[in-house]
Amino acid sequence: MTEQYDPNAINLNDKFGKIAKHWSPHILARLNDFHVKAAKVQGEFVWHQHDETDEMFIVHKGTLTIKYRDRDVVLRAGELHVVPKGTPHKPVADAECEILLIEPAGTLNTGKAGGDLTAEEEPWI
Amino acid sequence: MTEQYDPNAINLNDKFGKIAKHWSPHILARLNDFHVKAAKVQGEFVWHQHDETDEMFIVHKGTLTIKYRDRDVVLRAGELHVVPKGTPHKPVADAECEILLIEPAGTLNTGKAGGDLTAEEEPWI
Repeated sequence: MTEQYDPNAINLNDKFGKIAKHWSPHILARLNDFHVKAAKVQGEFVWHQHDETDEMFIVHKGTLTIKYRDRDVVLRAGELHVVPKGTPHKPVADAECEILLIEPAGTLNTGKAGGDLTAEEEPWI
Repeated sequence: MTEQYDPNAINLNDKFGKIAKHWSPHILARLNDFHVKAAKVQGEFVWHQHDETDEMFIVHKGTLTIKYRDRDVVLRAGELHVVPKGTPHKPVADAECEILLIEPAGTLNTGKAGGDLTAEEEPWI
């Protein structure tokens, strides 16, 4: 989908209400070379890493666990966390969770890990 | 202050609870060349623009109005908005409001407008 600019307020509850599929990031906004994405997640994602970039998670609703090889970071609504570039991680959510992802445009959700959960195309919403 | 990396969850209510001064952005995290900042605001900021970068506002609590020359964008809690680079704008909040700002490290809060509200140094929190 073509890049879009929304000149108005972007309401997160409205946007999350339009997302049905889990682990499918939808683009809300561009910020220089970054995309701000909304995703609903539930269950286990794949282990992956982004060799070229940090990745920020902000939890809007629910609880997200970022698993690292040696520890877990538990994020609740109103909490954020940056995964440093090149660091293997695996997001997991026991119950449905709504998150914002902020990372450079073109960042593939599964890094180089591939698999069924790879979102080859991330639509604007 | 030295750049910091918080390896854990960053709780927004905790961070905002530590900020007393209005219009004084505090840095929560680095994301590549961006800083994620928290600010408490109330009253009128100055007209300014950022010629080199977009700037994203996310409202955590309260209501923020972004005034443009020809219109207003009203942002409530759970809403975000990107001010395009080079665009004159003036943030205004009738009551105290808690916001996240996401923009490149080193972005001066008043652009080139200067004045009493310029935050020459933005501390980590």
